[in-house]
Amino acid sequence: MRRKIEDDLGFGNRVSGKQQRALNRDGSFNINRKGQSFWKTFDMYHSLITMKWWKFNSIVALYYIAINILFGGVYYLLGMQHLAGALGTSEREKFFDAFFFSAQTITTLGYGRISPVGFWTSNVAAIESVIGLMGFALITGLLYGKFSRPVAKIVQSKNAVMAPYKDINALMFRIVNGKVSQLIEVEMQVVFSFIQMEGGKTIRRFLPLELERSKIVLFPSSWTVVHPIDENSPMKNYTEQMLKEVDAEFFILLKAFDDSFSQTIYWRSSIKHTELIWGAKFVNILTPENNGSVTIDMSQFNAVEKAELNKPIAETAAIASDALLTE
Amino acid sequence: MRRKIEDDLGFGNRVSGKQQRALNRDGSFNINRKGQSFWKTFDMYHSLITMKWWKFNSIVALYYIAINILFGGVYYLLGMQHLAGALGTSEREKFFDAFFFSAQTITTLGYGRISPVGFWTSNVAAIESVIGLMGFALITGLLYGKFSRPVAKIVQSKNAVMAPYKDINALMFRIVNGKVSQLIEVEMQVVFSFIQMEGGKTIRRFLPLELERSKIVLFPSSWTVVHPIDENSPMKNYTEQMLKEVDAEFFILLKAFDDSFSQTIYWRSSIKHTELIWGAKFVNILTPENNGSVTIDMSQFNAVEKAELNKPIAETAAIASDALLTE
Amino acid sequence: MRRKIEDDLGFGNRVSGKQQRALNRDGSFNINRKGQSFWKTFDMYHSLITMKWWKFNSIVALYYIAINILFGGVYYLLGMQHLAGALGTSEREKFFDAFFFSAQTITTLGYGRISPVGFWTSNVAAIESVIGLMGFALITGLLYGKFSRPVAKIVQSKNAVMAPYKDINALMFRIVNGKVSQLIEVEMQVVFSFIQMEGGKTIRRFLPLELERSKIVLFPSSWTVVHPIDENSPMKNYTEQMLKEVDAEFFILLKAFDDSFSQTIYWRSSIKHTELIWGAKFVNILTPENNGSVTIDMSQFNAVEKAELNKPIAETAAIASDALLTE
Amino acid sequence: MRRKIEDDLGFGNRVSGKQQRALNRDGSFNINRKGQSFWKTFDMYHSLITMKWWKFNSIVALYYIAINILFGGVYYLLGMQHLAGALGTSEREKFFDAFFFSAQTITTLGYGRISPVGFWTSNVAAIESVIGLMGFALITGLLYGKFSRPVAKIVQSKNAVMAPYKDINALMFRIVNGKVSQLIEVEMQVVFSFIQMEGGKTIRRFLPLELERSKIVLFPSSWTVVHPIDENSPMKNYTEQMLKEVDAEFFILLKAFDDSFSQTIYWRSSIKHTELIWGAKFVNILTPENNGSVTIDMSQFNAVEKAELNKPIAETAAIASDALLTE
Repeated sequence: MRRKIEDDLGFGNRVSGKQQRALNRDGSFNINRKGQSFWKTFDMYHSLITMKWWKFNSIVALYYIAINILFGGVYYLLGMQHLAGALGTSEREKFFDAFFFSAQTITTLGYGRISPVGFWTSNVAAIESVIGLMGFALITGLLYGKFSRPVAKIVQSKNAVMAPYKDINALMFRIVNGKVSQLIEVEMQVVFSFIQMEGGKTIRRFLPLELERSKIVLFPSSWTVVHPIDENSPMKNYTEQMLKEVDAEFFILLKAFDDSFSQTIYWRSSIKHTELIWGAKFVNILTPENNGSVTIDMSQFNAVEKAELNKPIAETAAIASDALLTE
Repeated sequence: MRRKIEDDLGFGNRVSGKQQRALNRDGSFNINRKGQSFWKTFDMYHSLITMKWWKFNSIVALYYIAINILFGGVYYLLGMQHLAGALGTSEREKFFDAFFFSAQTITTLGYGRISPVGFWTSNVAAIESVIGLMGFALITGLLYGKFSRPVAKIVQSKNAVMAPYKDINALMFRIVNGKVSQLIEVEMQVVFSFIQMEGGKTIRRFLPLELERSKIVLFPSSWTVVHPIDENSPMKNYTEQMLKEVDAEFFILLKAFDDSFSQTIYWRSSIKHTELIWGAKFVNILTPENNGSVTIDMSQFNAVEKAELNKPIAETAAIASDALLTE
Repeated sequence: MRRKIEDDLGFGNRVSGKQQRALNRDGSFNINRKGQSFWKTFDMYHSLITMKWWKFNSIVALYYIAINILFGGVYYLLGMQHLAGALGTSEREKFFDAFFFSAQTITTLGYGRISPVGFWTSNVAAIESVIGLMGFALITGLLYGKFSRPVAKIVQSKNAVMAPYKDINALMFRIVNGKVSQLIEVEMQVVFSFIQMEGGKTIRRFLPLELERSKIVLFPSSWTVVHPIDENSPMKNYTEQMLKEVDAEFFILLKAFDDSFSQTIYWRSSIKHTELIWGAKFVNILTPENNGSVTIDMSQFNAVEKAELNKPIAETAAIASDALLTE
Repeated sequence: MRRKIEDDLGFGNRVSGKQQRALNRDGSFNINRKGQSFWKTFDMYHSLITMKWWKFNSIVALYYIAINILFGGVYYLLGMQHLAGALGTSEREKFFDAFFFSAQTITTLGYGRISPVGFWTSNVAAIESVIGLMGFALITGLLYGKFSRPVAKIVQSKNAVMAPYKDINALMFRIVNGKVSQLIEVEMQVVFSFIQMEGGKTIRRFLPLELERSKIVLFPSSWTVVHPIDENSPMKNYTEQMLKEVDAEFFILLKAFDDSFSQTIYWRSSIKHTELIWGAKFVNILTPENNGSVTIDMSQFNAVEKAELNKPIAETAAIASDALLTE
């Protein structure tokens, strides 16, 4: 059983672990770093662009309040006599006059009822308006960047199945494009990951699985991805029990061109051995209509029905398995 | 007749349908979804970026009116005494003062004839100006996004022809770049789609067609795409009548690099069997000029002239066709 | 002499012409269109993004003047009593008050010395400010788009040379990256284009030339592109005189990844037979420095020196040439 | 020893040099140009987008001050009577009134306490506000461009090692993704560069090295890049001393898709022969945790430990080396 070395998942061979997924369904990895300061790996753009909307909006709100307290404070300290038109009489009212003047300056709103008089206050206002332009350029750039970021929304069937396929069996799962936009030249890679004992150490191995189709030109409806368990399949000797023992996990990587974003997108996911149903097949969800169009019934997308498996390729699975471990 | 499984249109095999196209000429598919809520597949960015201009502008106008009614209403309810400079006397005039003050705030125009006085009104104005900055960042981002979105404008001949080609025949259609910008490294894929009976069910099949040229480096003039009906063509046994019976449709996918957008673009289309003229060829539209340049006559782009076909590769078409259906 | 059909320039075979280049040195083509209205091929984004700076700036200036005349006119017609603070007394002054009020509105400047009073004038101002935001979004988007558009600035040697190369000869020209930014994974294609008589018609043919290197990983200094005239070269039978007779032109297409724009760029050019010097080689311009760095002497970039050619591959050129024309 | 000509570093063969690196660790080259004016190669976008932040901010500050001095000067010269509301009495105060009015105009702040009166001053203000919109569009575009520019932050081990590998030896170095964002489809190229005497001239040669893995699909943890010194390795005959004599340098080029920027990125680096430790191997830094995740210990990232090398492939290194130089 030779392993393709040119095209491999980048986990290294020493990675192992049983209870948790290696690759989460949302595409993130269960990898921790130590010995490296937080700030060294911190990537502000990445954090802000991938951040949840409510978090991003909260940060913008906090920034807006903080910068107005800062500049408002400066105007207040420079003396309210330099803010012509300010009406506040108590210190609290005066501070709020300065605070709202700051807000009207940083947004380049500039009503002008309150306006700066004198060199220093005018100076600070001139600086604040530029900081406002540049700060809001970053904020609005990120805002639109978040809004227009090409993210694939592939919907994957809750389970994979081991189903009869021609006169053998096949591992199958199905996906559908969860968005209205078209995906073009969709490529799929599936990797079989399992742990092995080697010299007393647990080692996680990665083997690519050949697919019936690994690329489709257009992706208008659903796609059932099929790995036939034939003579060349690295899974040919595995039973349901054995997959559990080796803590099997199937890594999925999809690449496509998104027509509305005009960009290449990637989508990753994984299927744990506990999510693989043996002896089942997916229910048909495509129905041709009388007018020539086709209907996909998404309510049945995850539905499977019982299906008797064909005889496995390798009846001598137990023996082969031992052989595998001493490869 | 083996089917290339690595490179296939993603319709699945169960898709069929006779009256309608599977792939519309504008690149959209005749696929319906049920069992999935509208909001789950709704993609706001996609909708807004692909929306017609008048729709987009209407939405912007409605948003602008609605948000000014909202904020104008808030200012009005907070009390007109907090809007210094407002001159309105009737309630209607007062509301419009508040409404236009809102408009001057959300655009960060801020004339200042009317200006906020007091904590709450100042506060709402400060919030509105930020919402204005961020809202208009989305709107103007989308506006420019729509304006600068790389969309191929390939003009396809109204008909395809079955024309004599060397000593055999060939399926031909022609395309021209409808825009001034240059397309580079243009790749073409054509797929022959037809329905078959299999176990009582109508199944739509997809077979890629080999082209005389599938890639051109530059695309300055017109391109006649040619599929020779030779020994290896999946169309070799088909007559005009048979193409009608199997509801034949030819899918076209073009990929290119757009020089002015500096991006890869895709264009899709299809040709129905009813749009294929047998025994015709395209009229020449390229004329060399005396000064060395070349003129394309677009008025003759769709023009075809009669042309006697060569003897088809397979004279035993009827028999082969039966064989095909029982493959 | 078989022609590679998979990878061809898209001129079609009917294109010919002698005096002029087919592909200009700036990458544009000598192709005219007729029978198609100007507006059908007009692409506003393409025109504006590729337009010269002074043209673009003139258009922006004209737009700014025109829209202020338009809106200024509307304010003027609605009545100057609705523009509070306007001081003009003559009609001319009144119009300019309206005109500059419009300018202050469309840029969202809003000094407020002049401000709208009354429903209709306020309304027009509210509309103008939104139009201003959206119009300037397009203008500034295009401005930055023009500024940040990835354009290759490859400098090509004024001439190509036919130089001795090992024990044969080779067609050579050299290029250098005219910008400071790095080009990565640079790919080069050269196509030999010539005219042929076929059935009484002049036909332009295109044959790709094999290069000694067609791809370089990094492009820090100059690159001498070399096509060896060996047994497989389509140029092996051509003499200087014959290249003139067939109106030879060499098309050059370069593809690379631009490191500062993070985008793929293309560059095209061509070399006419009149620009090819026989029996010459390029002067060396790379000098290693004592500190280990290398200096390129750009002043010698176009310099060539005499070099005796090796005996051509085909001594029987005349005969072979005839054969070519009857291929 | 045949050299792959299709895929080569673009240094040309004449480049040589001993003391300095050819490719710096930050990806820049030690190449000088002469005979070409500074302005011809100057690329403003490239300079501004790759410039350090403090430089960029300084330029923006200088621009802001300069343009306000310019326009403030114009207003001042046009006469302060045309700036209604200006309170300054001394010439110095009057100039600052004009200066700050300019600042309030170019940022489209427009408080309006000071406002233009009369044709020429209004005109200049109208022009300045448009220049402000367009200038700040460039500045904020660049600001966001710098902020969102996809730059790989690959951390490379301080040294490479010559380590035992199976029954031979291998050149190894390791890299880790220094950012939180995911890199996908990571491709690695390593080129062995050395100098040779040829006809009395020192010539730098470049030979690609075959890697155990040249591509990984995902890059969640660290990657030890391995070039096995086998029969086909161009390094098979080299000893530590010989690498020094030929001034060996290893060029590294990494290509990947950055998931948060949705773009392809490149990263380059080099390893000098002085940075290669013979007879050492990297300390393991991956530890599986009980919960199934994996921990990378970055504090040990550069750590190596002694490791006895296997017998080199070529015992006759000295002879082979001579052969090499006369190749």
